[in-house]
Amino acid sequence: MAHDLLILAGDGIGPEVMGEVKKVIGWFNANGMAFEVEDDLVGGCAYDAHGQAVSDATMDKALKADAVLLGAVGGPKWDKVPYEVRPEAGLLRLRKDLELFANLRPAKCFDALADFSSLKRELIEGLDILIVRELTGGVYFGEPKEIRDLGNGQRRAIDTQVYDTYEIERIASVAFELARVRERRVCSMEKRNVMRSGVLWNEVVTQVHQDRFADVTLTHMLADAGGMQLVRAPKQFDVIVTDNLFGDMLSDVAAMLTGSLGMLPSASLGAPDPQTGRRKALYEPVHGSAPDIAGQGKANPIACILSFAMALRYSFDAGEAADRLERAVEQVLAQGVRTSDLLGAQGGAAVSTSEMGGAIVAAL
Amino acid sequence: MAHDLLILAGDGIGPEVMGEVKKVIGWFNANGMAFEVEDDLVGGCAYDAHGQAVSDATMDKALKADAVLLGAVGGPKWDKVPYEVRPEAGLLRLRKDLELFANLRPAKCFDALADFSSLKRELIEGLDILIVRELTGGVYFGEPKEIRDLGNGQRRAIDTQVYDTYEIERIASVAFELARVRERRVCSMEKRNVMRSGVLWNEVVTQVHQDRFADVTLTHMLADAGGMQLVRAPKQFDVIVTDNLFGDMLSDVAAMLTGSLGMLPSASLGAPDPQTGRRKALYEPVHGSAPDIAGQGKANPIACILSFAMALRYSFDAGEAADRLERAVEQVLAQGVRTSDLLGAQGGAAVSTSEMGGAIVAAL
Ligand SMILES: CC(C)[C@H](C(=O)O)[C@@H](O)C(=O)O
Ligand SMILES: CC(C)[C@H](C(=O)O)[C@@H](O)C(=O)O
Repeated sequence: MAHDLLILAGDGIGPEVMGEVKKVIGWFNANGMAFEVEDDLVGGCAYDAHGQAVSDATMDKALKADAVLLGAVGGPKWDKVPYEVRPEAGLLRLRKDLELFANLRPAKCFDALADFSSLKRELIEGLDILIVRELTGGVYFGEPKEIRDLGNGQRRAIDTQVYDTYEIERIASVAFELARVRERRVCSMEKRNVMRSGVLWNEVVTQVHQDRFADVTLTHMLADAGGMQLVRAPKQFDVIVTDNLFGDMLSDVAAMLTGSLGMLPSASLGAPDPQTGRRKALYEPVHGSAPDIAGQGKANPIACILSFAMALRYSFDAGEAADRLERAVEQVLAQGVRTSDLLGAQGGAAVSTSEMGGAIVAAL
Repeated sequence: MAHDLLILAGDGIGPEVMGEVKKVIGWFNANGMAFEVEDDLVGGCAYDAHGQAVSDATMDKALKADAVLLGAVGGPKWDKVPYEVRPEAGLLRLRKDLELFANLRPAKCFDALADFSSLKRELIEGLDILIVRELTGGVYFGEPKEIRDLGNGQRRAIDTQVYDTYEIERIASVAFELARVRERRVCSMEKRNVMRSGVLWNEVVTQVHQDRFADVTLTHMLADAGGMQLVRAPKQFDVIVTDNLFGDMLSDVAAMLTGSLGMLPSASLGAPDPQTGRRKALYEPVHGSAPDIAGQGKANPIACILSFAMALRYSFDAGEAADRLERAVEQVLAQGVRTSDLLGAQGGAAVSTSEMGGAIVAAL
């Protein structure tokens, strides 16, 4: 049976990097796998086409697909569109309506790129941490979320951070399960000294640990201290579990540690279906739409290609295929093939987006 | 007329580092200035003494003092005390009741310590940025802020981020004014793509800039990207203005860049009194109470001493005295005097807290 992939390449460099993923998919199709690919719109391009950041028809397809691959959304072109239909609203609706509560963001340092970090080499060489970010709750979606006119020139903006026990339980479980196939260490981050949601977060994570994951080591850290520790000594961490907003900040800091934002994939997963065991899933690079270099063939497709490797692993139970793809990427990097974002101070010749994709397919 | 200082040394290493500040105050008193010092309790020690993280009597003194010097609050000893009287509640009440809405957190890299950062030397050498953090609003204080029992084993935690126009106007004004005596560049950070408070923040900062500070360069950055950029290329920033929670995270990341948390002071300022022009103010080191090394004479008193230098500058109009104190600190560092936190990989002999304080007084 064929696997249905919905591809939402989005804005900016999205379509370029996704083009290379399609080459990779083509290789796997030529070598025994069966992916069926459909393209559709999300973000600014969807707004331009039909006034919405993601249409109901696209949402239907996303709900039915075995996995969604997303490029990137947004850009200055849509800075002035109404809040409800801004490009990011499309991404947020996908996350929310597919109930993709678990966002997995590995921050791995590739040996060939270790000098590329702003951190000293010894601090990031061999770095391999996984940030597990809650993705459908917290301040991203809580109500009220509005701007009120108070009269006499004053307005009041309100956002609401809301977490229920079950939301914390399920994300904690994902983190502990993933830790079991890694180094069995989870660090939970919140601001319990200031936020009531931090207090509940801390209590529920502790309870889940005690009830079901006593074989994993659990520590707690305040989120601000966590940001510091990521910069000071990132290798102290294995799995970090945290809420939607802290996860947004901390995973971006962690991403930057590796020195190569163009390299980092992510997976957003739902709960396993009680009947089929299948999870709804969306895969996307951590980088944004990079409008400044869009359309120039300069973008690094690796983050998007590695996101497809995560799809192989988490949606299609094809761990070996995922390993093979990840090894191909490492090999190409070891050969010195570099898109311009990977050149750094020492310079050298850059390959284009499609040359990088081609090299990876060749290595496969 | 004497200047009234209220000293709240607090918990952990607070009393030790504050002891060195008192030596410094003694030196200034012996050399023409007139500070009158009163000590009182805040944090865990206040809870132990009278069941509150800061008493009403102490608050009265804080309201009347010309400036408050605070050490640090908190520690594992008070992990189980009720939320309302936890050590941090004392600090938060001081900030809120004194209306200290403007938190100034300079992140400066001292030449003598540049190798101490986890970042490569060239990225942080000469670093001098100022984070202006809103301190009395946002998710720290918004209501509702509670944990509700939903029945059937579920609880719901709620925190509320609230910002009114005037709160954003006044913190933006402080940032622009400070930028005028620096490099005239302000970068405002929020998450307008997700939070309505980010939208209002962005609009109000833009308006204040347009109306009154067109001579300063204003840029905007999403807070997650801001965290990344701080790690990637921190010297691109001059002044950063941001809300309470993002400021908490970003200033901790920025602090860690300098490699020496024990070096960083902060000032929290209120609005100038319409009659006297005086601002309420509290000065405190950025580091915490470090319970693991408390009472051992190991703590670095420089952050607390430099906080007093900020008091000289912002509360007592004694910029020359502040310069003199900052130069004394630089001189002592250049001589190689190091508390143990400043030794790093190359090792060497560490001085004690009081030896460091003594060396700085000698340099004065
Ligand atoms: C684009 C934006 C809405 C998004 C977020 O804030 O979650 C992005 O920063 C991310 O981290 O995926
Ligand atoms: C101690 C804590 C309440 C405080 C905060 O979150 O503001 C601290 O982290 C800080 O940055 O001053």
